[in-house]
Amino acid sequence: MSLPPIRTAVRILGIDPGLRRTGWGVVDSDGNRLVFVGCGSVEPKNTLPLAERLLAIHHGLSRVLTDYAPAEAAVEQTFVNKDGAATLKLGQARGVAMLAPAMRGLLVAEYAPNLVKKTVVGAGHADKTQIQMMLKILLPKADPHSADAADALAVAITHAHHRVSAQRLKAVGG
Amino acid sequence: MSLPPIRTAVRILGIDPGLRRTGWGVVDSDGNRLVFVGCGSVEPKNTLPLAERLLAIHHGLSRVLTDYAPAEAAVEQTFVNKDGAATLKLGQARGVAMLAPAMRGLLVAEYAPNLVKKTVVGAGHADKTQIQMMLKILLPKADPHSADAADALAVAITHAHHRVSAQRLKAVGG
Repeated sequence: MSLPPIRTAVRILGIDPGLRRTGWGVVDSDGNRLVFVGCGSVEPKNTLPLAERLLAIHHGLSRVLTDYAPAEAAVEQTFVNKDGAATLKLGQARGVAMLAPAMRGLLVAEYAPNLVKKTVVGAGHADKTQIQMMLKILLPKADPHSADAADALAVAITHAHHRVSAQRLKAVGG
Repeated sequence: MSLPPIRTAVRILGIDPGLRRTGWGVVDSDGNRLVFVGCGSVEPKNTLPLAERLLAIHHGLSRVLTDYAPAEAAVEQTFVNKDGAATLKLGQARGVAMLAPAMRGLLVAEYAPNLVKKTVVGAGHADKTQIQMMLKILLPKADPHSADAADALAVAITHAHHRVSAQRLKAVGG
């Protein structure tokens, strides 16, 4: 019995949500090849009312979805800390950030922070500097101007590495 | 000097966000008159992936916005508790719930839970039963089938009571 063919060439949008700054990064993945496409961040004015800040995140990511037309999306699972107010803010931004690709019918995968680090650096406890160094090697043309854009590229790379095995499992299971 | 005239007749959407159940309630407000228009809740299947649950909340509220065409919206400010995972879930639902009216250009006001209780019951520490009893008096035709729909109507009533003074302040201030 042979496994069904799986489409491996895909454009992936990674998102690192935040109310003050939401990073995004787009990569093309084809088998083991990764190509940098674009990255940036959406930064709503913090003087705006909450609903308008959320709207700015929505509009920013909608523009990215229109401009780059990714086929799949991924976000990091959120590390919940003890600061309830900060968690609530992050949650609100994260909900809106996940909604934008879902509204266009895209799959939105979630990955644990440790898996992102392990995939990009090879160790689950890598720090931000190590991630940024590995990004330069994996995506030489990438020029993330913020840590959030770099984190978004890292989660896009993680999805590129794990999506095929996830689909294989699903195909075999189904 | 006379204050500028302010439009007092308005249709208001109140929202009580939650990932498992998002309540909504619509009232017409004209001066001191309040009229019940509709209420209900959106309940995404909890077996769906997070992005699809958020999408279901978005679609449910979008349908309410289309069907009832409210002019303004209001949500309760969230009580942040110590359960970080619950706060994150609530935040994600709340972000998506506030986005839906904002996408249509509606103002989305936020009110502290104590102000909602004080406005509806007359005391800042009222319990859910007292709120539901007062709802029956203020909106005799309302038939909320869930606590979330009742809470959504309560926040809509709160906005009806406080929006004019807020606009007066803005008009005088500007």
